[in-house]
Amino acid sequence: MVDIIHRIGIKASISSVYAAVATVEGIAGWWTTATSGRSTPGGRLNFRFQRPTGEEIGQMEFEVMDLRPEQHVRWRCASGPGEWIGTEVTFDLKQEGDTVVLLFGHRDWREAVEFTAHCSMKWATFLLSLRQLVETGQGRPAPEDLKIDDWN
Amino acid sequence: MVDIIHRIGIKASISSVYAAVATVEGIAGWWTTATSGRSTPGGRLNFRFQRPTGEEIGQMEFEVMDLRPEQHVRWRCASGPGEWIGTEVTFDLKQEGDTVVLLFGHRDWREAVEFTAHCSMKWATFLLSLRQLVETGQGRPAPEDLKIDDWN
Repeated sequence: MVDIIHRIGIKASISSVYAAVATVEGIAGWWTTATSGRSTPGGRLNFRFQRPTGEEIGQMEFEVMDLRPEQHVRWRCASGPGEWIGTEVTFDLKQEGDTVVLLFGHRDWREAVEFTAHCSMKWATFLLSLRQLVETGQGRPAPEDLKIDDWN
Repeated sequence: MVDIIHRIGIKASISSVYAAVATVEGIAGWWTTATSGRSTPGGRLNFRFQRPTGEEIGQMEFEVMDLRPEQHVRWRCASGPGEWIGTEVTFDLKQEGDTVVLLFGHRDWREAVEFTAHCSMKWATFLLSLRQLVETGQGRPAPEDLKIDDWN
């Protein structure tokens, strides 16, 4: 199995970082404004992505598998790009000095394809957006997200 | 084996992107200003990293394994962080419409540790620096690189 993993440090309270990954309002502030559903164990989260012109790029649905306040969030992809179905996204939080360390994972890709490399780069820029949201109050979610290549 | 892979698109000539990854001057413009050595097959490249205060964080040396103009660069880590020794870094370039697609790899980690996640995130920000260098003439190499966590 192939995994994308990233580490980022955020200067904020662990409760505010947790809120950014464990609530619909939080996620909408750094990943995509078109976030809906219920962030509760067994709940479903739906994410839609559009170009700034309004054209839909894609959408995906995750089941919320685990939520441990200020520690851990785990989702499993139920629908979306074929390569994503069955993969899991995790956010693990810990305090180190004055920094909250967020360990991100998008795991269990069946193979490492060019789309995996695109998603790895894209997740990194969304984690910068997440940090900016928590530290400044303003993230950079889709559709105004940083574009990284000819795919988005 | 564990691999870091990223994909980024750059709006520039493929020769200018190749120069950024295949010459000492190019690499010094986006990764670390303290780049030295010879970028020739069998040559050695040395990279040093300091904090803005001047304190040394670390250094590493790579052997240049392969150089194919406008297509491919491959290095093997000869010395540096223990986790890096023996790993390989590759840059593969291709033209897609008006975009040069750069496929980056840092492969053959023995295991996925927290430092791998740090390096994955850090490489992503250095690739943004590389794009900025090629597209605007000004990258963001160490020691003025974007800091991503409490490790750097």
